[in-house]
Amino acid sequence: MRMQELSAATGIPTATIKYYLREGLLPEGVRTAPNQARYDDAHVQRLKVVRALADTGVGIAGIRKVVEALDSPPSNPNAVLGAAHAATTPQAGSDLDPSKAEDLARRLGWTPGACDEKQLAGLAQALQAVDRAGFEIPGPVMDAYVEGIQAIANAEIANVPQDSAEAAVRYVVLGSTLPEPLLLAMRRVAEQVAATERFGRPEQN
Amino acid sequence: MRMQELSAATGIPTATIKYYLREGLLPEGVRTAPNQARYDDAHVQRLKVVRALADTGVGIAGIRKVVEALDSPPSNPNAVLGAAHAATTPQAGSDLDPSKAEDLARRLGWTPGACDEKQLAGLAQALQAVDRAGFEIPGPVMDAYVEGIQAIANAEIANVPQDSAEAAVRYVVLGSTLPEPLLLAMRRVAEQVAATERFGRPEQN
Repeated sequence: MRMQELSAATGIPTATIKYYLREGLLPEGVRTAPNQARYDDAHVQRLKVVRALADTGVGIAGIRKVVEALDSPPSNPNAVLGAAHAATTPQAGSDLDPSKAEDLARRLGWTPGACDEKQLAGLAQALQAVDRAGFEIPGPVMDAYVEGIQAIANAEIANVPQDSAEAAVRYVVLGSTLPEPLLLAMRRVAEQVAATERFGRPEQN
Repeated sequence: MRMQELSAATGIPTATIKYYLREGLLPEGVRTAPNQARYDDAHVQRLKVVRALADTGVGIAGIRKVVEALDSPPSNPNAVLGAAHAATTPQAGSDLDPSKAEDLARRLGWTPGACDEKQLAGLAQALQAVDRAGFEIPGPVMDAYVEGIQAIANAEIANVPQDSAEAAVRYVVLGSTLPEPLLLAMRRVAEQVAATERFGRPEQN
């Protein structure tokens, strides 16, 4: 298909597609004339992934890392998971106390080396932000966080498809990044439902 | 304390504090001279909250809504939860199919009116983003999302403090927004731990 058709098939404006091409997020089409190229279904699929990542707030550099992981899948899906996480993890500061993060990580099943350092730093950063705000998460709530998140992650990894390396990589990369906004949206709904049960209906505003 | 001391106590530069004052995120200090004002511990606490929200990616308009909810607490903590959620929920598009979101919300205990429309729209938006990327969340994984998130939200609301309306409001507002990056960071660590168990250690990179 031509650029115009690619745009129609994905709902993405041609100017945006050209930008993704320039940034290397989308492979070049097959050139059919000096000023024309032909695209196929792989371009449609890739564009959908790029757009979805952009929609969840991943920056261009992060999307590039995810796309590279999809394009040259290592044999171990775990290495790809690292690339996907690296793409979506905010850069952590350097003045972090790792001990609290390690304690929490241990409750999630962590042992030294079982995840990359950047993720531990991300955990330390997130803990510090809560702490600095002067907010204390009650013990039973933190227990629920640990149990709930561990059950979620275990189900996700248990369902990595076995049929092909490509399918496994695609699942791991997209499955770690795309559901983040969904999980937060589900939590907001569930919090409001629980609050309505406990305190009654909110006033309309 | 003076502006300089307020800055020292919070680690926030005076230029940033002045910006927060201009934006109405921080109440004015008590003026002691035309060019000088005095601040107290309430300013320190408020600044910590503002900074923490900014760090978790909430914009100025969103922080203002949270601060207003903290300043004029309604009697029903549920109404404040709505304000906190409104501050942190991305604006949803209008071309959304609500039926899938309602199905998912029902699994989270929702009945019509049990949460505000904006949260359902946010859920529909998040589902659509996953869908548009051509990614399908396996059934057992979605089951784990529903169970894990519901357990988390129930624990959070069960632990809303009873001692004062102010304490309840503070807990609900901060407890809904601040832990978001923490939960995502915990999930990344738990995913890597589970992937290491299933696939072995990732290659170092």
